[in-house]
Amino acid sequence: MDRRSFLTRASVGGAAAAAGSTLAAPAIAQESPTINWRLASSFPKSLDTIYGGGEELSTRLKEASDGKFNIQVFAAGEIVPGLDAINAATDGTVESAHSVGYYNWGKDPAFACGADLPFMFSARAKAAYNYHGGGNENYNEFLDQYSLVAYPGGNTGVQMGGWYRKEINSLEDLKGLKMRIAGLAGRVVEKLGVVPQQVAGGDVYPSLEKGTIDAAEWVGPYDDSKLGFQKVAPYYYYPGFWEGGPTVSFFFNKAKFEELPESYKSLLRTSCQSVDQNMLAKYDMKNPAALKELVGSGAELRSFSEDVMVAAFEASNEVYAELSAENEWFKKQYEAMLQYRDDWYLYAQTAEYTFDTFMMIQQRNGKLAVGGGE
Amino acid sequence: MDRRSFLTRASVGGAAAAAGSTLAAPAIAQESPTINWRLASSFPKSLDTIYGGGEELSTRLKEASDGKFNIQVFAAGEIVPGLDAINAATDGTVESAHSVGYYNWGKDPAFACGADLPFMFSARAKAAYNYHGGGNENYNEFLDQYSLVAYPGGNTGVQMGGWYRKEINSLEDLKGLKMRIAGLAGRVVEKLGVVPQQVAGGDVYPSLEKGTIDAAEWVGPYDDSKLGFQKVAPYYYYPGFWEGGPTVSFFFNKAKFEELPESYKSLLRTSCQSVDQNMLAKYDMKNPAALKELVGSGAELRSFSEDVMVAAFEASNEVYAELSAENEWFKKQYEAMLQYRDDWYLYAQTAEYTFDTFMMIQQRNGKLAVGGGE
Repeated sequence: MDRRSFLTRASVGGAAAAAGSTLAAPAIAQESPTINWRLASSFPKSLDTIYGGGEELSTRLKEASDGKFNIQVFAAGEIVPGLDAINAATDGTVESAHSVGYYNWGKDPAFACGADLPFMFSARAKAAYNYHGGGNENYNEFLDQYSLVAYPGGNTGVQMGGWYRKEINSLEDLKGLKMRIAGLAGRVVEKLGVVPQQVAGGDVYPSLEKGTIDAAEWVGPYDDSKLGFQKVAPYYYYPGFWEGGPTVSFFFNKAKFEELPESYKSLLRTSCQSVDQNMLAKYDMKNPAALKELVGSGAELRSFSEDVMVAAFEASNEVYAELSAENEWFKKQYEAMLQYRDDWYLYAQTAEYTFDTFMMIQQRNGKLAVGGGE
Repeated sequence: MDRRSFLTRASVGGAAAAAGSTLAAPAIAQESPTINWRLASSFPKSLDTIYGGGEELSTRLKEASDGKFNIQVFAAGEIVPGLDAINAATDGTVESAHSVGYYNWGKDPAFACGADLPFMFSARAKAAYNYHGGGNENYNEFLDQYSLVAYPGGNTGVQMGGWYRKEINSLEDLKGLKMRIAGLAGRVVEKLGVVPQQVAGGDVYPSLEKGTIDAAEWVGPYDDSKLGFQKVAPYYYYPGFWEGGPTVSFFFNKAKFEELPESYKSLLRTSCQSVDQNMLAKYDMKNPAALKELVGSGAELRSFSEDVMVAAFEASNEVYAELSAENEWFKKQYEAMLQYRDDWYLYAQTAEYTFDTFMMIQQRNGKLAVGGGE
């Protein structure tokens, strides 16, 4: 962005508005400035749905501003490595990033709170917490020290629990398991005996094939299906309890954000929220078909056993206690989620769960099969 | 809207763009016209969340357009009765309406397909179908004959099954039950022996109190809690199987919509989608607390028995067969939903359902109680 020309235009607009006011005319809107921003995505283009969220924001802004508010999107690695996208927005290398907060876990664990925490919210409850439970406000209060403003910009729905070369029949089978899993989730499963491994995206398949690692978590059926994991690690577990409803966020350099006219700030908020819903809707359309294909091509679908789930839940609570003792920003954000989590999972037991359960039973009984249910 | 001044401006803009092109300069955007529209809401202001969707659209448009794209919102009854809002957009009395398609059930049953059908989608699956399963396109193809363009503009989540003066322990207890329930849902429960009643919103409470009616469906805990139904019909049943994830829609008079510059059309689509997500997020935040309060003040929470659910499912399929035989537009839209319904409720049995179920069990066991789970 040409900052000088923007400031000049803003001053001119201000003068016109001041002149107008002496005539008791309605305030004259300043001419909308042309903005040219760059966005560093944490995602490769091959993850078209999540990467596409950045492109979609760009398109919505450009269309609604008649070509004046432009964001050029760069895939992971084009300007900075994917895991550095948030930092590039902090230091002003780019004006904006599309990423997941927990990628900055190593810098500050409190970044994870705007993305997802293990055993926390489903995507619906997450949206309620983000927009109406103080979630966005809490996250932005924390992000201020990193010169960032963030808005939710996508969700994948609950992720899968990953691909395993062997069956995991009990907690015992996790002991010593070398698994590609990072950050907070890695710290949780470490307490169960898993040995977390850092493996770059492109190396996951060969590492599973050679047996350098025993398991790997990725995203969900649609994204996973592109990589063919079922050929080398066929046991496909669910749920990814560490990501019940992960929020993908748009991060904006705060100084650049504050320079925007109010109309652009509002358009940006509205556009981010549309992308937020739309990414989830895309995944929810694509994942069911992808899961059927995966099973058709050799994936062995399994749910984690109860002892694994319970132990992981307890391990998560231990990690929360540790992090809350170490990090005030983590503690504040984490604790702000708890009352609503309890309320939501009480409420959801009534109409939502009963409706869903009934529909799933009909599905299992073939009553929803097209042409077969009537 | 002053249509003449808009056309004049558009012509000027077109001339400027044409002149610009001879210099090989970028196309010069026309000056954005000022638009003043009216929106007829089907909802009273007292239903603040659903009525608020119209106000929210208005605010988002006004802010992002720097005050140029204005929609003035009128509550039910201020311009036309709430149930006539869609028709007022068709005939051009207003440029837009915020309503639920099934309110026009009596005019054409196919209107219901853009709102909700019994035993169809939860709110999440609904969004996926609307935006990425052809739902919006199918609905707009149908609406063309009514000179309307519609976009989703809110969702309540699955509704409750209503308030009953007596317990409904089996299908037998529905026989002869006088219930306030309308449209397609009324036609379904009529097959179970219920006698559907038309009762205006303000008359529901006194009718239940006097026993003129035995039961009434309204919305969900937050909206229901304002009316105090628990005092006169304490049995509060779930789920409202006729509305698993009802879409509230914005309807636009097609000629007026087509007059908008492309930038405003895009802004309108983006803003509608934000409202769509945001209304559900609001309800999901408000309903859990409201349900606790209702139970605290005397509501007796009950789930419908399995025989009621199964009979209602079968009755719905009968109604679908009847309507499909009678109405091509209904048939086309209904059939377009079926494959995804089957796929979604298969897929949802894996990670989503397992995660949710585990979290609900923790909730029941007190493990999510604030301060009590660690």
